[in-house]
Amino acid sequence: MPRSSLPIITLLTDFGSKDYYAGAVKGSILKANSEVHVVDMSHEISPYNIREAAFMLYCYYRSFPDRTIHMVVVDPGVGTKRKPLMVATHEYYFIAPDNGVLSFIYELDEVTRAVAIDAEHYYAEEVSNTFHGRDIFAPCAGWKAKGIDLESFGEPIDDVVKIEVPRPKLLGGKLIKGQVMHTDRFGNIITNISNKVFEQVSQKNGNKPAKLIIAGKEIDSFRNDYAAEQGSLFFLPGGSHHIEIAASRASAQAILGVEYGKEAGIMFS
Amino acid sequence: MPRSSLPIITLLTDFGSKDYYAGAVKGSILKANSEVHVVDMSHEISPYNIREAAFMLYCYYRSFPDRTIHMVVVDPGVGTKRKPLMVATHEYYFIAPDNGVLSFIYELDEVTRAVAIDAEHYYAEEVSNTFHGRDIFAPCAGWKAKGIDLESFGEPIDDVVKIEVPRPKLLGGKLIKGQVMHTDRFGNIITNISNKVFEQVSQKNGNKPAKLIIAGKEIDSFRNDYAAEQGSLFFLPGGSHHIEIAASRASAQAILGVEYGKEAGIMFS
Amino acid sequence: MPRSSLPIITLLTDFGSKDYYAGAVKGSILKANSEVHVVDMSHEISPYNIREAAFMLYCYYRSFPDRTIHMVVVDPGVGTKRKPLMVATHEYYFIAPDNGVLSFIYELDEVTRAVAIDAEHYYAEEVSNTFHGRDIFAPCAGWKAKGIDLESFGEPIDDVVKIEVPRPKLLGGKLIKGQVMHTDRFGNIITNISNKVFEQVSQKNGNKPAKLIIAGKEIDSFRNDYAAEQGSLFFLPGGSHHIEIAASRASAQAILGVEYGKEAGIMFS
Repeated sequence: MPRSSLPIITLLTDFGSKDYYAGAVKGSILKANSEVHVVDMSHEISPYNIREAAFMLYCYYRSFPDRTIHMVVVDPGVGTKRKPLMVATHEYYFIAPDNGVLSFIYELDEVTRAVAIDAEHYYAEEVSNTFHGRDIFAPCAGWKAKGIDLESFGEPIDDVVKIEVPRPKLLGGKLIKGQVMHTDRFGNIITNISNKVFEQVSQKNGNKPAKLIIAGKEIDSFRNDYAAEQGSLFFLPGGSHHIEIAASRASAQAILGVEYGKEAGIMFS
Repeated sequence: MPRSSLPIITLLTDFGSKDYYAGAVKGSILKANSEVHVVDMSHEISPYNIREAAFMLYCYYRSFPDRTIHMVVVDPGVGTKRKPLMVATHEYYFIAPDNGVLSFIYELDEVTRAVAIDAEHYYAEEVSNTFHGRDIFAPCAGWKAKGIDLESFGEPIDDVVKIEVPRPKLLGGKLIKGQVMHTDRFGNIITNISNKVFEQVSQKNGNKPAKLIIAGKEIDSFRNDYAAEQGSLFFLPGGSHHIEIAASRASAQAILGVEYGKEAGIMFS
Repeated sequence: MPRSSLPIITLLTDFGSKDYYAGAVKGSILKANSEVHVVDMSHEISPYNIREAAFMLYCYYRSFPDRTIHMVVVDPGVGTKRKPLMVATHEYYFIAPDNGVLSFIYELDEVTRAVAIDAEHYYAEEVSNTFHGRDIFAPCAGWKAKGIDLESFGEPIDDVVKIEVPRPKLLGGKLIKGQVMHTDRFGNIITNISNKVFEQVSQKNGNKPAKLIIAGKEIDSFRNDYAAEQGSLFFLPGGSHHIEIAASRASAQAILGVEYGKEAGIMFS
C-alpha cells in the first residue's frame, strides 16, 4: 500500500546552531503534528536581519514541492504588537512574523490569501512572550500541515509590513542597473538582476558581449561555470536565478569588498 | 488509513558541524531502526562541556511530545568505566553517559526508572572504544524506539554521577539570589531564576517594580519583549523559562561581560 | 500494518550552514521523491576540498543501512564537462561529481557498477549550469530512491577521475609509515593507518609497546580512551577506524601543529 507523502515544513531562522532554539521549534511542530517532514534551511541568518532572510527565502522557496509550508522566524519584534502571519500563494504557504520578511513573496509572486494568526487554540499550551517561534509559529505550522484551512487561523489581513524589494532598472536599453543582494560562503556576489532579465536584454542587444561594472571595476568576462583561471573575476547566471559575480576558487567578495546595496551595472556594447 | 507517528529521538552533542560524527550517529540509529524521526538539537556544545549540555537539555526537553527519546553525547570519559545510562521520567526517555549531564532532569523532574546499559546484543556489530555515541548510544536509542522495555537494556542503577544544579535562594522575602547559567547567540544572559519563582516572589511583594543587580550594575527596566531602545539593558521572563538579561538588538553579554556562575540578584523594593 | 522503511539519502557538501544551498538540495530531493529520509552529514567541508570530502565519506559510509544513497556535492567543476556519477558497491549507492571524491570507495571497497548520469528526464525541470547539486544530483537521488535501476541513469563509465589514496607502508616489519589525513573538532589527528593494520603488525611483533613518531616528537603512550592526564599526548585506535593522535581534553593539533600529509610513523620495538 503506497503511503501518502508527509507534508513538508521548512525552517529559516536567526537562532544560530549552538543554542537549542531551532531544535525546540522542531519539537513544538512535532508536538502539534508528528506526521510532518521538517527541513532545516538555515539558522545562521545574521541576528535580526529581516532583509537577509527575505531574500534567502525568495531564492529557495520554489525548490520545494507544492503545498510546502515555509516558516521564517527572524523576529526582533517578538512579543510586541507585530502580528504572526499565515500567507498563501498558488503553490505554497508561509508562516512568519509581520515584519517584511515575506516582502519578496508579496512583490514577486502572487499572494492569494493572508491572515493574521490569532486562533489561540492552535498555540502551545503555554506561550512565552519572547519565543513565538516555538509557541505560536511552530504549532500553527503543525496544525496547518494537517490540512486545517488557512482562514481558521485568523482574520484576513491586507496591510502587511513591507521592506524594500530593490528592482533593477533598464536604462537606454543598454544598461541594467542593479545592486548587490547577498554574498555566499564562496564569496560569490549575488545581484538583484535576474538571469531572465539579463537574457532578455542580452537578446535585444543581439547577444553581444556585456560588461559588468562594480566598485569602479569593469568585469568583461561572462561565463557559464566557475572553472576560470584561479582568482580571475567574471560574472555568470547563478544558481540563485540571479546574475552573480564570482572568482574561480577565490572569493569575489574578498577581491571587491562590496556589501549589500552596492550598485552593479551591466552594460551591453 | 492513518499512519501511526514515528518515534522521535533528539540529539545533543559536542561533535561540531564540520565532522561526520553527528551524521554517523544518525546512521547508526537508522541502522538499528529506520522507523524513527531523528531531530538535531545542537552539535555545538563546547567540547566536553557537560554543564552546558545539562542546562540546555533542561531548557528544551519538554518541548517534545511524550515518549520522545532524548539522547545526549557529550562524553569526555568515553571508553573508561563510566556507564551508559537509559533513564525514564513520567513523560520522556534519556540516553546519555553517566557523567552528570542528566543532573537537571534528576534534580528538577522525577526519574522513575534508570538502568546502566550493558545489553551488548543491542550494540553495533563492531564497537569502537572511543565512539560509543555511534556504537552504543545510537543503536540502543533505535531499539528503545521500537518499544523494547527499558529494563531490557541493563541493570537498575541508583547512584548516578551528578553535577551541581545551582538553585536560586530567596533572602528576606525581598531578594532572589541567582546566577548566570548561559549566554545565547543574541547575547541574552539566562539566569537560574525561573520565571515562575520570579512571579511568585513578585506577587508576594505586591507586584511592585524590581531591580536586577549584576556585575555592579543595577538594571531597573523590566520588560516583556526585546523591543526597547537599542542597546539599553533590561530583564525579562525568557523563553527558556528563566529570567534573562537582554539588550535590544545588542548583546547584553558584550555590555556586561559576565560568565557562567556570575551572581545575579533580583531585589524587590 | 508495519510500514516499510524510508530509503535513506545522506548529504555531504561544502555549501556551509549559512546559505540556503543545502536546504534547496533537500527540497529538490523531496520534489522528486518525498518518501525519503534525508540525513545531513556535514555542509562544512572546506570550500572545493575534494580530498577532505573523500576521506570523510570513507569514514562514515558504512554506518548506514544497506542501500543507503550517499550523495556528495563538493563540485568546483560544476557546469564544465565533468560528469555526474552514480556508483554502486555491494551495499551502497553513491551520487557525486566525477572529480575524485569517490576515490576511497573505488580504492578500498568494490565498485560493482558505475554510470555517467545523462538521463535528463530525471533532472529538475529547469537546470542551472552552476547548481547541479540541486538540479541534477538531488532529483536523481530522489528517483534512485524509488528503486529505478542504476543503469537507467546513464551509460556505464570506467575511467573515472581518481585522487591519490595514501596507503601506509610497512617497513622491515617494525615500522608502519603513514600520514595525517584529518584533524577533527577536538584536535584529534587522524592518520591513514587503520586500526586493523596496526593490530596485525602489533600482533606480529608480540604486542610489545609501540611508539608513534610525528613532527620530531616521540609519543610512547598508547591508550584505549581519551581520559589521560590533561594535555598529555597519546595515540589510540580511533572511532574513524584509524589510529589517532590525541591529547586529553586538549587539542593534539594545537600542540603538534601538523597538517594533512604530515608523516606519522609507528615503530614497534
